[in-house]
Amino acid sequence: MAMTMTQKILAAHAGLDEVTVGQLIEANIDLTLANDITGPVAIREMEKAGFTKVWNREHIALVMDHFAPNKDIKSAEQCLECREFAKKHAIVNFFDVGEMGIEHALLPEKGLVAAGELIIGADSHTCTYGALGAFSTGVGSTDLAAGMATGKAWFKVPSAIRFVLKGKLSPYVSGKDVILHIIGMIGVDGALYQSMEFTGEGVASLSMDDRFTICNMAIEAGAKNGIFPVDDRTRAYMQERVQRPVREFTADEDAVYEKTYEINLSALRPTVACPHLPENTKTIDELEHIEIQQSVIGSCTNGRIEDMRTAAEILKGRHVAQGVRTIVIPATQAVYLQCIREGLAEIFVEAGAILSTPTCGPCLGGHMGILAHGEKTVATTNRNFVGRMGHITSEIYLASPAVAAASAVAGYICAPQDLK
Amino acid sequence: MAMTMTQKILAAHAGLDEVTVGQLIEANIDLTLANDITGPVAIREMEKAGFTKVWNREHIALVMDHFAPNKDIKSAEQCLECREFAKKHAIVNFFDVGEMGIEHALLPEKGLVAAGELIIGADSHTCTYGALGAFSTGVGSTDLAAGMATGKAWFKVPSAIRFVLKGKLSPYVSGKDVILHIIGMIGVDGALYQSMEFTGEGVASLSMDDRFTICNMAIEAGAKNGIFPVDDRTRAYMQERVQRPVREFTADEDAVYEKTYEINLSALRPTVACPHLPENTKTIDELEHIEIQQSVIGSCTNGRIEDMRTAAEILKGRHVAQGVRTIVIPATQAVYLQCIREGLAEIFVEAGAILSTPTCGPCLGGHMGILAHGEKTVATTNRNFVGRMGHITSEIYLASPAVAAASAVAGYICAPQDLK
Repeated sequence: MAMTMTQKILAAHAGLDEVTVGQLIEANIDLTLANDITGPVAIREMEKAGFTKVWNREHIALVMDHFAPNKDIKSAEQCLECREFAKKHAIVNFFDVGEMGIEHALLPEKGLVAAGELIIGADSHTCTYGALGAFSTGVGSTDLAAGMATGKAWFKVPSAIRFVLKGKLSPYVSGKDVILHIIGMIGVDGALYQSMEFTGEGVASLSMDDRFTICNMAIEAGAKNGIFPVDDRTRAYMQERVQRPVREFTADEDAVYEKTYEINLSALRPTVACPHLPENTKTIDELEHIEIQQSVIGSCTNGRIEDMRTAAEILKGRHVAQGVRTIVIPATQAVYLQCIREGLAEIFVEAGAILSTPTCGPCLGGHMGILAHGEKTVATTNRNFVGRMGHITSEIYLASPAVAAASAVAGYICAPQDLK
Repeated sequence: MAMTMTQKILAAHAGLDEVTVGQLIEANIDLTLANDITGPVAIREMEKAGFTKVWNREHIALVMDHFAPNKDIKSAEQCLECREFAKKHAIVNFFDVGEMGIEHALLPEKGLVAAGELIIGADSHTCTYGALGAFSTGVGSTDLAAGMATGKAWFKVPSAIRFVLKGKLSPYVSGKDVILHIIGMIGVDGALYQSMEFTGEGVASLSMDDRFTICNMAIEAGAKNGIFPVDDRTRAYMQERVQRPVREFTADEDAVYEKTYEINLSALRPTVACPHLPENTKTIDELEHIEIQQSVIGSCTNGRIEDMRTAAEILKGRHVAQGVRTIVIPATQAVYLQCIREGLAEIFVEAGAILSTPTCGPCLGGHMGILAHGEKTVATTNRNFVGRMGHITSEIYLASPAVAAASAVAGYICAPQDLK
């Protein structure tokens, strides 16, 4: 029977020749992930269930990123709990302050996720790794506990929606605009428990960072996962980082998709998701005049080096507008170091932005840029729910790094082309 | 009648020819300072007292540094309150995210404080500016409110203790060791409501950053202020930053001091203040083996460029010990930028430390490195009171940047000379 790319990965990990939509399977996991918020919950669940050992100390990742460096005593205690667990079980991939970065940027960078693998993470944006041709999805902390203990997880095989990409993105239009456009089109439940499979000749022109951003936000359309085919770009990315053998899966020619959408990349415009849902999208041309008090460039969605380069290109020789706190957060220590080496860090500070150490920080209202009442922010993050970044009357406009940087300079939301 | 340096500045600002110890005077203020914690309190007090105008919009500084970039909704609201006040009164020296730094490093750097001036600040470490030969002291928010409204403040003229500095500091011994040694000698109430006046041929060898650090911690001996004579180093520092005329005061030859201490700088050793008081000092040679989980290099005490250079010199080509979160926080955007340009930022990140955007952060348990139960930290900050940086069972060892950097590498508190 014909299978999608996702279904093939699931079948292989379940030791089955084929799987069908809706089938319940038990699959072998290649990696489990938890962070400083979900880790402690998973650890306690695991211990409560009587497990005293982890299934494989090399295939568990624990990343201290959400409230680290610790914002308060509670978050310090949570990190300590993860640290002690990591020590007790000799967990190889425990990432603490100084080594860490935002989990979904860090794991691909460290070569811990690769094509054909199956990854579960106690964080909704675990779906990011689909950019590499992996199946990865967010799970609850209890499921993660079981995964850490047994190396296995249950799945219901998802159906799929196909997005056929054509053409090529215009300057200052990026992966973020692609995924915002799609979510605007299909809605925040448009892909509920389905795979979003990206394909078509347009894929080749998308950078890896574009693809990570697109898969990262698959969950914002309700998807179980997002996934890209493996091509030369993927292989080049993995070649630098992944030592172990990699397995490539491709969808069958006659795989069944519940829907197929054609996306003309060439026609896309900078796109903004207005409060309070990622589906409330407008192109920059349709958007009214929105003054902002803050601009955030970072997160697991848009904190990679390409995002930093785009923002720096726009901020270079310019200064942020009076009254716009501009917070740039490279996603990992490696990206941060690269920002220093390439001169981007200098550009940011000279432009009046601040450069934070890697952290999820303000994205989830953690720290490093929380909003007061009535304040508006443009942010390259992934969710603009009520109160997500601070006071319940504050407002978040989701956009690309190009738009966030340009808006910081203008003082209102605009595209780089609108700057003098 | 003979007067000390402090008394002369007070007399001049009160329009008097002379003042005597214990006299109550009303003096003109050159600058008032508040931050995102004390600012809102002072603003409300000012309005409660019926004042609708500030005395001089150019002589008020408001610095958003303690919990900025905002760690939570409450701190965001506090910054917003300051921001609106600054806008309403067209305050010239309002420093927000992107322009800001830790107040006591920022004000000297911006040339807002100078020799002979009188500065009050709603922050206990306002005494820092004595390094420039100014009289500066911390006041409560209500006193600050009156100062912002009237440009005047009441003082009781303090008596003085004289510290005669001789000799020259050894390598890796700095201003921090001088002041810790002194506090260890006289105790945390050793200079209660007195001036600490530093003098002697040893002064000349102390850098401006050493002097800032020394005056900064005068309050930790209970002093009203700390003050250095103005010399060529001071003049050179001010020449780059201060445009207005500067007035130099010198103590009378026969000024009266309650006590005189001679400090032989050459004999000083790296000094550490053990929990839970700054007076609990030991030299590095006397200290037992103290393992640490964190090292913090920054704060208004030790976040200046010289501190960064010292730390970088030690961290260069080395790596912090496993399990030691090493948090480096340049005190201002200018220091941060300098760290990037001089290659220090790169050294820190390569060594496994993180570089935070300027903030008071962990020093007062704000954010960016709070301690869990039982954790120990070495820190270049100014107070090691119970629970100051986190859980009440955590412990803080105050030290210089050299010791903090070396300890990060070793995993336990030591001097740079102890490293392999």
